[in-house]
Amino acid sequence: MASYTVPSLAHLVDEFERLPGIGHKSAQRLAYHVLGLTETEAQSLADAILDARKKIHYCKICCNLTDQELCSICRSETRDKSVICVVEDPRDVAALERTQEFNASYHVLHGVISPLNGVGPDQLCIKELLARVSAGGVEEVIMATNPTVEGEATAMYLSRLLKPLGVRVTRLAYGIPVGGDLEYADEITLSKALEGRSEI
Amino acid sequence: MASYTVPSLAHLVDEFERLPGIGHKSAQRLAYHVLGLTETEAQSLADAILDARKKIHYCKICCNLTDQELCSICRSETRDKSVICVVEDPRDVAALERTQEFNASYHVLHGVISPLNGVGPDQLCIKELLARVSAGGVEEVIMATNPTVEGEATAMYLSRLLKPLGVRVTRLAYGIPVGGDLEYADEITLSKALEGRSEI
Repeated sequence: MASYTVPSLAHLVDEFERLPGIGHKSAQRLAYHVLGLTETEAQSLADAILDARKKIHYCKICCNLTDQELCSICRSETRDKSVICVVEDPRDVAALERTQEFNASYHVLHGVISPLNGVGPDQLCIKELLARVSAGGVEEVIMATNPTVEGEATAMYLSRLLKPLGVRVTRLAYGIPVGGDLEYADEITLSKALEGRSEI
Repeated sequence: MASYTVPSLAHLVDEFERLPGIGHKSAQRLAYHVLGLTETEAQSLADAILDARKKIHYCKICCNLTDQELCSICRSETRDKSVICVVEDPRDVAALERTQEFNASYHVLHGVISPLNGVGPDQLCIKELLARVSAGGVEEVIMATNPTVEGEATAMYLSRLLKPLGVRVTRLAYGIPVGGDLEYADEITLSKALEGRSEI
């Protein structure tokens, strides 16, 4: 490193550079921004990081993120607990909640089965899901993993484990995205859209 | 906000979103990344932020950033203190140091005169520069502010203050950037390059 380097600044740049999507230039920009914060603002940023890391863990029922024993959805009494929507990631819960049309509960796998990346069923929250379904009261499990090869494989794997437990296992519909353009849709999406066509 | 929101997570997203160049999606991504860190890693990131903010201040001589009383360049005995290169920002010092060809000292203004943004000469480190030059031993001051209207105006303003003190005031050369393409160079750069042509 050049002779002008200030160790604590270089260290901060290094730390920012480790974050996803932050390259060296962005890390520098963030670090210089931090130098311009007031002490209170810097403290508030640091506290938010530690706080989130310490307080947030998995909900005991659905494995979504929460800072209490159960997440707000599992605690809610107005939610339909007989339908479980299985997603890969807590962000997917956020996306589905934004539709404001889904009033059942979720189960977060925290990943997909991916032998290439060394992720097997044991690293995912699958046993928690099986326990929930085995405990009874569940009528339908909706697979809402991403429409990728790995997402599909995980959905297939789960449906084979779940069906013997006597629940209905469904999958999100494939088709043209609303506002999309037929001309730019890929062949597989189009053939899935044809296959899933419905009466109007 | 939707009912599933975890307060400490939402707070962390907010904090990240305040950083420059970080939108809501990136802030979410960073926050989820923090949740996946070990406690030690999260602590290390938080400490780096607080540490940098607390330890780093301006060098008493050149106003560059340092965690000691004087920056490493001002402390160095091999640096030529009779030539001062005036820059807008500590990042410009870093850029010039990367050339590894400049062995004089710097002076960081921390901005440029910009009446539209309410920045006048008093908000910049100008009096420190005048004090350095008045103290004697300085032969040349190189203006290395950015080639923008405001950078130019600041350089002109400073040169008028400095020349009466009996120092040479120079300006970085304008011209075609190395590796650049004449076809895409703007007219002003081209005419400056013609004006500054030299014998080969």
